[in-house]
Amino acid sequence: MNQLKLSYKVAIKMMKDTQFEHKLGIEFIEVDDGFAKMKMEVTEDLLNGHSTCHGGAIFSFADAVFAIACNSRNIATVAQFCDISFVQPAFKGDILIASATEKYIKGRNGIYDIVVVNQNYQTVAFFTGKSRAIKGSIIKEEII
Amino acid sequence: MNQLKLSYKVAIKMMKDTQFEHKLGIEFIEVDDGFAKMKMEVTEDLLNGHSTCHGGAIFSFADAVFAIACNSRNIATVAQFCDISFVQPAFKGDILIASATEKYIKGRNGIYDIVVVNQNYQTVAFFTGKSRAIKGSIIKEEII
Amino acid sequence: MNQLKLSYKVAIKMMKDTQFEHKLGIEFIEVDDGFAKMKMEVTEDLLNGHSTCHGGAIFSFADAVFAIACNSRNIATVAQFCDISFVQPAFKGDILIASATEKYIKGRNGIYDIVVVNQNYQTVAFFTGKSRAIKGSIIKEEII
Amino acid sequence: MNQLKLSYKVAIKMMKDTQFEHKLGIEFIEVDDGFAKMKMEVTEDLLNGHSTCHGGAIFSFADAVFAIACNSRNIATVAQFCDISFVQPAFKGDILIASATEKYIKGRNGIYDIVVVNQNYQTVAFFTGKSRAIKGSIIKEEII
Repeated sequence: MNQLKLSYKVAIKMMKDTQFEHKLGIEFIEVDDGFAKMKMEVTEDLLNGHSTCHGGAIFSFADAVFAIACNSRNIATVAQFCDISFVQPAFKGDILIASATEKYIKGRNGIYDIVVVNQNYQTVAFFTGKSRAIKGSIIKEEII
Repeated sequence: MNQLKLSYKVAIKMMKDTQFEHKLGIEFIEVDDGFAKMKMEVTEDLLNGHSTCHGGAIFSFADAVFAIACNSRNIATVAQFCDISFVQPAFKGDILIASATEKYIKGRNGIYDIVVVNQNYQTVAFFTGKSRAIKGSIIKEEII
Repeated sequence: MNQLKLSYKVAIKMMKDTQFEHKLGIEFIEVDDGFAKMKMEVTEDLLNGHSTCHGGAIFSFADAVFAIACNSRNIATVAQFCDISFVQPAFKGDILIASATEKYIKGRNGIYDIVVVNQNYQTVAFFTGKSRAIKGSIIKEEII
Repeated sequence: MNQLKLSYKVAIKMMKDTQFEHKLGIEFIEVDDGFAKMKMEVTEDLLNGHSTCHGGAIFSFADAVFAIACNSRNIATVAQFCDISFVQPAFKGDILIASATEKYIKGRNGIYDIVVVNQNYQTVAFFTGKSRAIKGSIIKEEII
């Protein structure tokens, strides 16, 4: 009777289990196979010494969206290599949106592009994540 | 009368101003021109859905050390491009140490290598950060 | 009376001046502002010790297309940072096509994505190039 | 009776089989487990449209040294992901030296740092290569 798509169930389970994302105030928007979109507000506690959003917070946000996208088929998958280009600072009060798309997937290897934009649709950062499937799944077969 | 090296004064000022690092429990160990070393314990709230330390937390930690190293000469400097290789997971209770070394510096551009190890000296992640100096300084000349 | 678009004139001049690309048998297909497409056949002399196309030859091909795209507005521009993901080998006789698209451009900095595919539209490599404009132009104003 | 170290035999076999490196005039200097050093002169045919050494030629050179280092234990290994930072141009007549060192090796995965310097010991490029072992070896057991 559970009509939710598998990718949603996996995302809900992952978000629930990941305390670090709550800490950053990351909110879930959308998920599909190999795709995810999330939201994060730049609050006071995410700022760095230059009074802009800490690069680590932006990376963590992009990485969280990457994780939801690459685990979306319920095959446990981890980040292996990531890179990020910071092209514009984000400031206190900015609402950031990050979208992950699957660029490549073959066997256990995947490549995802994540773009982080602000509320004015200006790009803040480009992130590329390389994933590798490991053993196991996020949610058990019997409860799918 | 102030005998502290400039790199220490800059680091102290930056650490004080950066709320995000307090949030992660990052502690300062050492700094010098183009060099920095810091510590972070993997607490419950830094875990991801796989029960290992969130990649974003590891990146943020490495990025924080990179920031202290590349601003160490009191020339305001920001991260432009970063990449990270996650080679081994970190677990709850692990004590991580990250060291940044300056690989290259010329004009406004710098390249830094940051290595994150655990309490058993096993490498958890390799991080490379490309920095660019902007206008201004971290602490004012008159109070140096 | 010269009706050719500036991007074409720049590309023709660059291709003419670049002996290294002739050496690899790289052929020009198309160019526009921030965009370029080129072709390369995997000949015997581009193979490595595993009997597949040398990674250096694939990189050089992608890099050549990147150069044409980032110089397309006749502002002399050089590659600063590049990365490549080799996702599938290319074999002797394969016809590779690489297309560069401009992901980001602001002031003197640009980011380009280059995709290299084979004759069966299978992706061989993903390349990202970060460019920086320098002084000068490729072709002189008076002859534009 | 053959006293040559395995890493040398593998390097000799790989250099012999790789036509692309001959094309670039790459010469072998030294090899050891996880380490390699090679030489390349910047000849006229390696120049780009800016009259400096083509980035593709520098990458190919670094990549060749990376290949020798990561195959040095006679376990067939390929490049998966590479990135390069061009920090200073190389000019016609420059003699470039590239050294590869093993940063990390575990199971089938390796990370290597390659530095390319000119005859004045100035760094021209930093290259990082991520390798993955595949099936097979470079030279057959019986002839080792």
